[in-house]
Amino acid sequence: MKQSLGAVIFAYPTPIFLIGTYDNDGHPNIAPVSWGGICCAKPPCVTVSLRKATQTFANLIARKVFTISIPSESQLKQVDACGMTSGRSINKFVHARFTQARSQVVYAPYIKECLVIVECKVRHTFELGLHTQFIGEVLDVKADKSVILADGLVDLLRIRPLIFGPDTYEYYGVGKMLGKAFATGKKTRHHHADFP
Amino acid sequence: MKQSLGAVIFAYPTPIFLIGTYDNDGHPNIAPVSWGGICCAKPPCVTVSLRKATQTFANLIARKVFTISIPSESQLKQVDACGMTSGRSINKFVHARFTQARSQVVYAPYIKECLVIVECKVRHTFELGLHTQFIGEVLDVKADKSVILADGLVDLLRIRPLIFGPDTYEYYGVGKMLGKAFATGKKTRHHHADFP
Repeated sequence: MKQSLGAVIFAYPTPIFLIGTYDNDGHPNIAPVSWGGICCAKPPCVTVSLRKATQTFANLIARKVFTISIPSESQLKQVDACGMTSGRSINKFVHARFTQARSQVVYAPYIKECLVIVECKVRHTFELGLHTQFIGEVLDVKADKSVILADGLVDLLRIRPLIFGPDTYEYYGVGKMLGKAFATGKKTRHHHADFP
Repeated sequence: MKQSLGAVIFAYPTPIFLIGTYDNDGHPNIAPVSWGGICCAKPPCVTVSLRKATQTFANLIARKVFTISIPSESQLKQVDACGMTSGRSINKFVHARFTQARSQVVYAPYIKECLVIVECKVRHTFELGLHTQFIGEVLDVKADKSVILADGLVDLLRIRPLIFGPDTYEYYGVGKMLGKAFATGKKTRHHHADFP
């Protein structure tokens, strides 16, 4: 039996991206964002949504480049600390005890301790309402060698990224690997599904 | 030590949304999408990206409404079966042994067995390249009473949604609850972070 919750923001699960930018004076900022994800394969693009009131919004408008540092479970307290303050007046890298590094690909900072870094250039900016959506073209991805498998692919379970629950405001880890895509479904093949 | 992976699509973790639509003849379709997420709080909006070659793309252009059925771990084989076929010639609800229901809010079908349903109207369509991004305004969310907590919030761990690994093409579950947002970070407060 289902119950209506109204017109709420609710889509599970959402990621935690730490968005790295510089302001006009070169001050670094790092902000956790959960309204985001992959949005195009060619060119490879990611989307992040921000409120105009944030320092990261201002920095993205000014600089048009950013990094995404993907945090791990072990960095949870530091991630949450980044979300509890504004980058307008303090250096959140220092506040959260992250080491700041500068991307060699875009003029933006990233977190040295994070295992995966995505370097992006803003391609589109769409006004949606309270949030503005920035579409970033991925120029490069860097992964720590410790999370790269023998076949060159990156192992999610070695990164142990965080998941955000948008309803309860809780953080979760990633659980077990459950199956391979385009393979697990073979067992349910049904041959009487043709449209009449 | 980090290694460059090039300009690849890589942002962790991504969700699994099952997008429900009707075509021009009223045939239902259900398609798993991982390039999507929340993109605005007011109005509440979600984004889903699709290739032009898909039946769901054609249906969204024609109908401008859709549902998202959020699948659970127990439905993994059925979800993967939906991703292994095209809705052009077969009824994927029947193929994957899902029960089709019709939304009372938008002209679109959803999966009766899924615990959370999001009903959306397309507000914007943005051409990004191989993928087109559809921004859907959330008109209503419906959750099974079994996943709603006493305080009215929805428990992620009762839904047990699926996560997709875009690099290895694997499905994962959600792990443990690790902490509350805007609370866990208090313990790292650092008072010497002000900009000079």
